[in-house]
Amino acid sequence: MSFRDYLSEGRSIFDRLYPDNKITEIDYEGSTIVVYTKDQNLFSQRDDLARQIAQELRRRIAIRPDPSIMSDEKEADAKIRGIIPSDAGLQDIYFEPDTGEAVIEVDEPTIANPEIIKSIKAETNWSPRIVRAPPMYSRTVKEVREYLRDVKKERKEFLHNLGIKLTTPLMPGETWIRITALGGHREVGRSATLISTNNSKVLVDCGMININDPEHPWEEAPYLYAPEIQPFTSLDAVVLTHAHLDHSGLLPLLFKYGYTGPVYSTAPTRDLAALLQNDYLKVSHSENHKLSYESKHVREELKHTISLKYNETADITPDIRLTFYNAGHILGSAAVHLHIGEGLYNVVLSGDQKYEKTWLFNPAVNRFPRVETLMLESTYAGRDDYSYTRNEATNTLIDVVNRTFDRGGSVLVPVFAVGRSQEVMLVLEDAYRNKMIPENTKVYLDGMIMEATAIHAAYPEFLNRDLRDQIMIKRENPFLSPIFTSVETRKQRIDVCDSPESKVILATAGMMNGGPVLEYFKTLSADSRNTLAFVGYQADGTLGRRIQSGASSITLSDGGKSTKFDINMAVENAEGFSGHSTKRELLNFIGGMQPRPNRILVNHGDGNKCYDFARLIHTKFGVEAISMKNLETTRLF
Amino acid sequence: MSFRDYLSEGRSIFDRLYPDNKITEIDYEGSTIVVYTKDQNLFSQRDDLARQIAQELRRRIAIRPDPSIMSDEKEADAKIRGIIPSDAGLQDIYFEPDTGEAVIEVDEPTIANPEIIKSIKAETNWSPRIVRAPPMYSRTVKEVREYLRDVKKERKEFLHNLGIKLTTPLMPGETWIRITALGGHREVGRSATLISTNNSKVLVDCGMININDPEHPWEEAPYLYAPEIQPFTSLDAVVLTHAHLDHSGLLPLLFKYGYTGPVYSTAPTRDLAALLQNDYLKVSHSENHKLSYESKHVREELKHTISLKYNETADITPDIRLTFYNAGHILGSAAVHLHIGEGLYNVVLSGDQKYEKTWLFNPAVNRFPRVETLMLESTYAGRDDYSYTRNEATNTLIDVVNRTFDRGGSVLVPVFAVGRSQEVMLVLEDAYRNKMIPENTKVYLDGMIMEATAIHAAYPEFLNRDLRDQIMIKRENPFLSPIFTSVETRKQRIDVCDSPESKVILATAGMMNGGPVLEYFKTLSADSRNTLAFVGYQADGTLGRRIQSGASSITLSDGGKSTKFDINMAVENAEGFSGHSTKRELLNFIGGMQPRPNRILVNHGDGNKCYDFARLIHTKFGVEAISMKNLETTRLF
Ligand SMILES: [Zn+2]
Ligand SMILES: [Zn+2]
Ligand SMILES: [Zn+2]
Ligand SMILES: [Zn+2]
Ligand SMILES: [Zn+2]
Repeated sequence: MSFRDYLSEGRSIFDRLYPDNKITEIDYEGSTIVVYTKDQNLFSQRDDLARQIAQELRRRIAIRPDPSIMSDEKEADAKIRGIIPSDAGLQDIYFEPDTGEAVIEVDEPTIANPEIIKSIKAETNWSPRIVRAPPMYSRTVKEVREYLRDVKKERKEFLHNLGIKLTTPLMPGETWIRITALGGHREVGRSATLISTNNSKVLVDCGMININDPEHPWEEAPYLYAPEIQPFTSLDAVVLTHAHLDHSGLLPLLFKYGYTGPVYSTAPTRDLAALLQNDYLKVSHSENHKLSYESKHVREELKHTISLKYNETADITPDIRLTFYNAGHILGSAAVHLHIGEGLYNVVLSGDQKYEKTWLFNPAVNRFPRVETLMLESTYAGRDDYSYTRNEATNTLIDVVNRTFDRGGSVLVPVFAVGRSQEVMLVLEDAYRNKMIPENTKVYLDGMIMEATAIHAAYPEFLNRDLRDQIMIKRENPFLSPIFTSVETRKQRIDVCDSPESKVILATAGMMNGGPVLEYFKTLSADSRNTLAFVGYQADGTLGRRIQSGASSITLSDGGKSTKFDINMAVENAEGFSGHSTKRELLNFIGGMQPRPNRILVNHGDGNKCYDFARLIHTKFGVEAISMKNLETTRLF
Repeated sequence: MSFRDYLSEGRSIFDRLYPDNKITEIDYEGSTIVVYTKDQNLFSQRDDLARQIAQELRRRIAIRPDPSIMSDEKEADAKIRGIIPSDAGLQDIYFEPDTGEAVIEVDEPTIANPEIIKSIKAETNWSPRIVRAPPMYSRTVKEVREYLRDVKKERKEFLHNLGIKLTTPLMPGETWIRITALGGHREVGRSATLISTNNSKVLVDCGMININDPEHPWEEAPYLYAPEIQPFTSLDAVVLTHAHLDHSGLLPLLFKYGYTGPVYSTAPTRDLAALLQNDYLKVSHSENHKLSYESKHVREELKHTISLKYNETADITPDIRLTFYNAGHILGSAAVHLHIGEGLYNVVLSGDQKYEKTWLFNPAVNRFPRVETLMLESTYAGRDDYSYTRNEATNTLIDVVNRTFDRGGSVLVPVFAVGRSQEVMLVLEDAYRNKMIPENTKVYLDGMIMEATAIHAAYPEFLNRDLRDQIMIKRENPFLSPIFTSVETRKQRIDVCDSPESKVILATAGMMNGGPVLEYFKTLSADSRNTLAFVGYQADGTLGRRIQSGASSITLSDGGKSTKFDINMAVENAEGFSGHSTKRELLNFIGGMQPRPNRILVNHGDGNKCYDFARLIHTKFGVEAISMKNLETTRLF
């Protein structure tokens, strides 16, 4: 069926099921058919009716109030503030014109009764959604939300045009599916994989290696000049597995060079990616590096992002349907399930994944409706990679803190703002509450860690249940524990450095290739009472790896001049906090997969890891397993 | 060095070695530096001097007379006719303005003495080349030659621009080499393979499957819409291994859709491809099939073709150097050796090949200066494929003729015009001369066979030495034996069909999917005294294969209406005339290769042949061996 056919069929189903429907408009927004009505009743029953019609039409349906009957946002805001009782603890009201919802954030959502709901509807014609106010304030979440409201007109037009594209009839001809490795294959970093069919082109991830090697600048980026992906206007969709820069870092570049299509991600990935991209721009700018794009391209990316929940399915091209599944790696991280053709082929791209319940997340999902090919990461699939559990890592870290404090030293933990920071915070808070570390322990957080933590708190549905429950009760929210102090200014940082007392410092960047961690390192490195504790992977060529490998001194720029810093502080590894599966976990993930795929493509591993792990999989499970090289293309079908 | 640098360095070398050189122009034509001079002496010594300078400059050099001192062609023609003695048996004079040569074809080239040479030079300022007149007249060779003379101005400009392109400095950045299967991989037909580097794109072959399947028209062509090769203007060069339509059939299509670059082939491949392409157009037109291109696109291809001899090396892009090696398959067939980068990588694409000395050619070359990857055909690499020698095939065919003639029947041999026809002609002529078949044997040739034979005679340097020597002596030229009669008209064909005497008929097409062979078949099939003798491969889905597999009747259109033809004639196979290596020959080819490649990519085989043969190679020789699927891309470097 074509665009018009679907709309008129949708209309006639409505007319049949609900004749006096006062529908004013029926249109596409992305893959959803949106129906506008002046009938408040129809609007209210929309969930049931929409489900029924969606089933008949095999398209998603959204029913919304006709804008002409809705109050304007300012007026509605005032009316709602008048209706919500004061003991509800109203925190914020924001409007989602996309859906006609007024989201009302309160401390006590139990206050919402049918009476209140009904009167808000009657007064404003917005549909109220009363939710618990997020326990922490995130500037990123707030700004993204405001920005999306500012560009709602452009976004609506974009979604409308996308809807037309999505209902384009398929081209006749042979059916085939290709997968092209553009980056992050047989290496870690600059992840980018293209799936093309005879009808469409979908890029999964568009990362960077943030190495700043002026001799080989091209090694930072995936092979984006490959003809398979040029021009970018030929791309139909971009899918983002998670926010880490090695997956999202060059996504704004696509918009700089002509891409105008959709980006699909979870909502937290959208927000975190924008945070990390803007931070990358800020840091690179301050270091006078050549920038690949500007912040306006990050905004373009936001404007074109369509967020999906885990397990929610969306048509992203006329022949490809996308579903995200929890990957357990960082907040919002997802495995990408692509259903291609009508029952023709299914491919899952694992993204980065952790097949273990962590302090933050549930283990990666390994059950899918169908899957013929799996693309699987292998970061820690090597023979000599760590294989510690969360428990072991936790004990090691607590031990490191205690030993260091005992000798009057401080612990510096290089962390990425997103993921490992929150995990280490939870470990320290838990140890503190259970009196396993000194009562006077202070933990300083420097470099966006608090902001990243607040984003976690804004998306409790993406956390594991235990943590979700804890966060929702203010007194129990571990992130709000008094042991944590966020370092916000340069002066504060100097004070923390200068204070003689023992403390724990979590600071970015996680591999010490820049960021505030270097300032702390400079102050702490010479004193043998201190400890540098690594809790995450240190890639080849990073300062972290050099120190981890036993460097006795390091030369860094200090106040503009090159200075040698002796490393007398202890260097310890609290391995096991990784967001990546161990080799054993990867094998268990495959072993327990339902259904078992026919073919596994191993990527995201250093050196020979991808190749060796593919051989191991082949031997162990008897399925075809290969590791592609970047710039190679394999036929899936 | 850039374009200008090479030219001025060339100039200064000339000035040093031969100061009074009267050079009027120095310029690029393709990868050759062409020097024009008014000094007849310089022009005469050009071979020695050019070699010396070429070595210094590492570029090919050609020295030519300045056009202003050359007579115009008409005038020169008249003067030459006056000089050549009448007993030389002057046949033709033609001019090659590209090189400043006047080619003088005579029956007795021994007549050429220094006196004659000198006086032609003095009178015309063209450089005379006196050669033996080709023993047979080929309209194709004549027409191609005339056409190239007609477009010499456009061609000169094309070659000049190509020269500039070829001296473009290389782009900085990572060096990589990819090979993309666009057709003819894991199948026979529509051969097309793309080699791309960070600097250039070269397509090897652009064939078709001439199936005329209106349900799946796209199966006729390689995947030419793949982004790797789009737009065609992004291609730097096309290389043609040989003239068969499964390698050359869609080459004119590239010119229809915007390609304006060079085509590299041997001269006989150029001529034969034009012949076959034009014939394809004629036949398709008469059968009302939709045509992919027109004859003007064949002419464009000719205009852009640069012919190379075996073992002659040419720069075809700034980072790729091409050399053709004899492939033993059909006239002019070549293996393609690509030397990429300065000593970086070498890949050989076998094209179709025969590793056996045949009646026509030497065996395929398997010694190369360097080779890391070999792409090898596998047409007959299957377990059950024929493995007969030329000797066995010869004996079988002679036996079939004798048995059929004994019972008063005729032998119909479906053949391709190019290759198998000439081989069968040589066998029959040899048998006739040695009285192994009846003295009154008549052999009728229908469907361009004589023309294709004449093209063979025009390029004796591409034949094996025995045949070359035979052809050069008129009385011994086997192709001119009185047993052969060419069928040129429809009336002649009817006469041959109606004559009651026993005879041998060689007629195209080789797999009976069209062509005059069908007319003979209709007359001969019902009579059990006759024989249909297959001498070549019958592909899946062809009429030939159906009959070979034992069909007892066949329905064909006859005079516009569908008619059933019973097959009572004997059906015999004289296997062993193939232009493709047997499995044993392929293995011997690899086993004897110098040097041994690291990797072998197996293509050009039906069903599982490519896959199975790759496994066999891996087991037998321990080298990496794979078979790509169409639309897959592998990294070579
Ligand atoms: Zn990650
Ligand atoms: Zn990653
Ligand atoms: Zn061939
Ligand atoms: Zn072929
Ligand atoms: Zn093996």
